[in-house]
Order: sequence, then C-alpha cells, then structure tokens
Amino acid sequence: MTYTRLTVVGAGVIGLSCAWRAAAAGLDVTVLDPAPASGASRVAGGMLAPVTEAWPGEEGLLGLGVESVRRWPGFAGRLADAAGRPAGLRTEGTVVVATGGGDRAELDALAGYLAGLGREVQRLGGRELRRLEPALGPEVRGGLSVPGDLAVDNRVLLAALRAAVERAGAAVREVEVHEVLDDGDRVTGVRTAAGDLPAECVLVCAGAHSAALHPALHGLVRPVKGEILRLAARVGAFPPPSRTVRALVDGRPVYAVPRDDGGLVIGATQTETGFDTEVTVGGVRDLLRDAERVLPGIAEYALVEAAAGLRPGSRDNLPLLGALGPEGLLVATGHHRNGILLAPLTADAVLGLLRGEPEPAVAAADPARFAAAGHGR
Amino acid sequence: MTYTRLTVVGAGVIGLSCAWRAAAAGLDVTVLDPAPASGASRVAGGMLAPVTEAWPGEEGLLGLGVESVRRWPGFAGRLADAAGRPAGLRTEGTVVVATGGGDRAELDALAGYLAGLGREVQRLGGRELRRLEPALGPEVRGGLSVPGDLAVDNRVLLAALRAAVERAGAAVREVEVHEVLDDGDRVTGVRTAAGDLPAECVLVCAGAHSAALHPALHGLVRPVKGEILRLAARVGAFPPPSRTVRALVDGRPVYAVPRDDGGLVIGATQTETGFDTEVTVGGVRDLLRDAERVLPGIAEYALVEAAAGLRPGSRDNLPLLGALGPEGLLVATGHHRNGILLAPLTADAVLGLLRGEPEPAVAAADPARFAAAGHGR
Repeated sequence: MTYTRLTVVGAGVIGLSCAWRAAAAGLDVTVLDPAPASGASRVAGGMLAPVTEAWPGEEGLLGLGVESVRRWPGFAGRLADAAGRPAGLRTEGTVVVATGGGDRAELDALAGYLAGLGREVQRLGGRELRRLEPALGPEVRGGLSVPGDLAVDNRVLLAALRAAVERAGAAVREVEVHEVLDDGDRVTGVRTAAGDLPAECVLVCAGAHSAALHPALHGLVRPVKGEILRLAARVGAFPPPSRTVRALVDGRPVYAVPRDDGGLVIGATQTETGFDTEVTVGGVRDLLRDAERVLPGIAEYALVEAAAGLRPGSRDNLPLLGALGPEGLLVATGHHRNGILLAPLTADAVLGLLRGEPEPAVAAADPARFAAAGHGR
Repeated sequence: MTYTRLTVVGAGVIGLSCAWRAAAAGLDVTVLDPAPASGASRVAGGMLAPVTEAWPGEEGLLGLGVESVRRWPGFAGRLADAAGRPAGLRTEGTVVVATGGGDRAELDALAGYLAGLGREVQRLGGRELRRLEPALGPEVRGGLSVPGDLAVDNRVLLAALRAAVERAGAAVREVEVHEVLDDGDRVTGVRTAAGDLPAECVLVCAGAHSAALHPALHGLVRPVKGEILRLAARVGAFPPPSRTVRALVDGRPVYAVPRDDGGLVIGATQTETGFDTEVTVGGVRDLLRDAERVLPGIAEYALVEAAAGLRPGSRDNLPLLGALGPEGLLVATGHHRNGILLAPLTADAVLGLLRGEPEPAVAAADPARFAAAGHGR
C-alpha cells in the first residue's frame, strides 16, 4: 500500500463500499458524512441493469456496467459474510416492456443494438410477458427478457455496508466536509464543520456534492434530480411482479423494482434543477400514471414514500474513478444513475489504486480524461 | 355545574375545544389521548364551508354548519387571546367551480337549492372566476362565489387549542382509553392502558374510535377514510389561490385550501375500509389528476405530505352531541367531514350540557335519536 490511512468523504454506497474493502485490506479508514447512508443511495431503486439501460453511444458505460453486474453476486456474498446480514441482492432478472407502437419500435432498436454487440436478449410478446409476470397489464404489447439484469434492495444493502464497515474497524464520523486541503503538491487534510482534520489520502465519494470539495473537481460533477416512489402491496391487491419491470410508456421510461417484503419501488424522474430535493406534483403524477399503465394493480397499493435524490452526473455519463489533482486525492464519483450497479467494480478499482495496481476494467473512467479540457491539475 | 371534574377522551379538535372551554369555565379537566392532535383533526383540510358542501336532504347539517361558521370568528378571536397565538382562521371565502357540462348542471342545481333556502350565492362564469382567482385553469367554465364559507389552518388551530387547554389548567395525559366504566347507572371511571382511573363525568370525543368505548355507542360511529395531500408553492411556480377552491371534475369533488405560508391542501378521497390509514396509489392519483385540471399550476408545486385520516361517520351524517347511556356519559362525536367546522358550536353545546342548559341549536344532534332504534340505554 502507498498509504496506511484513508479518509473517505461520503458514506453513500460508493463511500461505504470502498471504506469496507480498504479497512478489510488493513488500512486505517475514517469515513466522514453529516448524514451517512441518507443521500441518493437511500433514495435509489437499486436496479443492477446495464443491459436494459444500454444506450447507443454509451458502450463505455455498458462495458463498466456488465463487468460490475458480473461481480455483484460475489460482492454480495462477501458483504453478507462480512456484515453478518443479507446484502439484499435479488436474482429474478428483468423484463423491459413497451406499450404503444413507438415504444415497441424503440425496444426493437434496443434489441438489435444489443444483438449487434453480441448480447443475447429474448424477445417476447404481450401474452408471453404476462405468463412470466401476470401483474403486467393489457397495454403491454411486447418486450424483452434479460435474466442477467439484477436488482438489490438498496436500504438492505446500505445497512449491510454500514455493518461491514464497522466490523472491519473503520470509523464513521457524522460531520460535514467543506473541502479537501492541499499544499499545492499533496493533500494535507480536510476542512470540516468541526474543524480541520489531517489526512494524507482522501477519497472523494460525495456524489452530487463532490464538485465543491476540491478545485480539481469543479465543473466535473453536477446534481441530476430523480424522484421515486415506494409502494407496498395491500391485502387483497394483485401481487407485485417478481422481476424488475422497465417500461417505455409513450416514450417515457419508468421502472418498478420489487422488494422481498412485497414492496415496489417506482422510478424515476430526471430533472436538472440544482441542489433541489423537493418532490413535485408533476413528478409524482407522471410516475403514477406511467406505472399504472404497465402494472394496473398498483392502484390498490399503499403509497409509502415519495422522495427525491441527486444523482452525481458527469459530462459523459461515465464515473470518475482515479487520481486527480494533488498527490493523495482520489475520486470515486460521477456515477450518475449507476452508483449501486457500479459499487463492486468501483471498490475493486479503488483498492487497486491504493495498492498501486490500477484496475484495467475502469480505464474509461479515469478522471484524467477531463484534464486536457482544462480541468484537474 | 352538575359536575366539578370532567374526563375528556380524545384530544382532537373536538376534545381540545371542549376541554379548553370547560377548564376556562372552572371545571377540573383531564384529557386522555395516546397521541394528542394526531388524528383526523391533523389530517383535515380545515374548510369551514357549510354552504358549498350543502346537500339536498341534509338541511339539519346545513343548519348546524351555518350556525357554527357564524360562531367561528368569535371562537377564533377568543382562542387566540386565550392561547397567546393565532388560531389560523382565513376569511377570504370560497369559490366552488365546475369543469364539464354535467358538473355545471350540478352546480346550477346547488345554486337553485341554496336560493330556495334563502341563501344567496353569486353565480360566475369562467372569466369572472379567473379574475378572482387567476390560478384557475381554462377547463373551469363556471361556478359560485360564497364569501361566507371560510377556512382554518387546522394545524395552527390544534397548536392554539393545546396552548389554550394548558393555560386554562387542564391536564393532557398521553394514554389510551379502552372503555368507559359504569356501575349500571352511573359512570365510575375509564379503563386505560395505564390502569383504571375514576371519573364521574366522561366526555367521549374519540372520533372514529368512539364506538368501541361504551356499549351505548356501539354501531353509532364508523370510520370513513379520507386521503389528503399537502403541497407547497415552489419558487417560480404560479401562486396559489387566495380563496378555498371546491370543484367538481367529471362528477368527482376535489378541494384546495390555501394556507398563509403558501401551502395548499388538496382533498379528499372518501372510502370505507375500516381502521385503515394507508395512503393508496389510486387515491393520490385521483386527487392529483382532478386538482390539476382545476389548478394546473400545481404541477410545479412540491408534494410535501400525503396522509389519510378517519372521519367519524354517523348514520345520518349529523354528529352525536349530548348525554347517552349511564348518568355522566356525554358524547361529542360522529362529526364526519365537519369536525373542525362544528367545533365552536360543539364546545358551546357541551358547556351547555355541563351547566344543565342545553343548547337549542344542536337539538338535531341529540344522540337520543338513535335510542329508539335499540341503541343507547
């Protein structure tokens, strides 16, 4: 190891995953967060769905996602062992469905695109889909089954990560970090709401709040608001699906992620309105309307929670994983919609950085790609 | 006074109003509630709108409501003085509006009905309504203005009532009451989760939970669930209306009650599913859809809260105000949708009962009307 101590800024899924792995590898780890496990990681739906979320032109992201979902079962197993509690992984797979003709054409294009990349997906008609998932309504006319796209209960995951971090001997301090301090060459510490703390290596995992923490990150990460609903099946209501259901409804994406306890997470809007975590009437209305068209039985479900989180958006939708700016500054942020999906790969990559053995699978996420454009130092 | 001590079961708007007035009149008052000010009174919208809620065949209720709204300004003024804080009354009035042709016909019928009762209401077209309330959308084609139908911020009211109760020297104990005890002739006490307490006079104001408290009340009060949303205007959003807006949207009633802080309360569904306070997807969807058709600008508002409460429904939609069963048992419950509206009149009536001077205005609410049907003793 280059360093013996690591200061992690941010206790979301990325910060906690990296802190757990680094502490388990023997580093002296301190995690700083004013409200651990309360940000975007807690609001999230928990899809591990790189294939059904693939988008032409984002092959780099698809590659990272496929590699990370491949590592997810092992990560979840080791985490459950380390934490002494379940990690929340669900392996029922994903269906992506379409309603109108335009939506079906878009899914056909996705299937063709994935086939061109050598990724097999199974095309299904409406009846075949309803045989798999009887909760799908009559407006669903076709879709794809992607058994390899998984899901995780993000709150179960966060609880497991916190337990694993604690058992590995890392400290979590509830304090806000204002900035990372350096002497021009090297990191010297962090400025917190409770005063300055010395540090030799700082890993910034502060999600949408990362850009403000060091000049090298300015302009590289921005908040992308997402609203999400949590439902619960009521007695007598139609049972929820067992697979994650992603849908296109008149061109609008909506998803429903089932939970082991009969819950269903419906998401997600996407708007850029700064550091704004208010849930809007229009957002809730859109989510309910589109989700009901796909899963009409949810009308009888309880609406348990409506919340908004801030995804850390980067300029190219790829995360920033690597060294940046002064010696001792590492970043693992900018995961946008994919923080939970990419947590295992990110933790592996950070451990590689700490060991001086960079993870080749994350080369596309090197933050140095932005330095040429005048960012970073 | 017939009694010197009064035990009030239930610390909603009715229980607190009666407790305040009784304590101020010199009685030794104890209020028992496991969670004061947290039930239907807290969920409510706070309309004081007997005229715009009038319904042919419910002239008794209209009479009670008109009498109580007449007493509201005086009640609010005395409460604010007694509590040392505002009571939350708003006097901007109410408009009731219609969208489609069927809705307009129904409002015309309401206007005719009210005119037949000698109650003047002002008929307005869509443009006139939008001049009064620019937040009304283009689907609003006509309506009525009823300046005498008022509103109150029910949470501000509850805070004032709690302060007034405390200043008047009444005690509020956070304990659940299981039943009212009697010896066959007279009330002897109450059975609580913390043991039996002696009592000579018990006033049951337990809302939807009242029926279980004494055999004389069995079958007379049932829970009628209502779901409600609390919104807040966001920066840049169209300002909320200043008056209460009641609307018929394709035959479905919906209302929006403005608050002094820019908030807007949207209500309310009405279903009978027992003691069920879960908010449903279908309920929220209906409220948002109908409210947006009338006030389209709310799409940009924050959805701050969704909640359900249990109205105490009676068989004839009139409350039960009076003596019932054994000596010393008084009831003030069954207010259904009108608990907040009827609080001043109810408190006056209860004070009259305690003084042995029955309030003639509430004769129609005498619970003895059900005794002939085999209820009560």
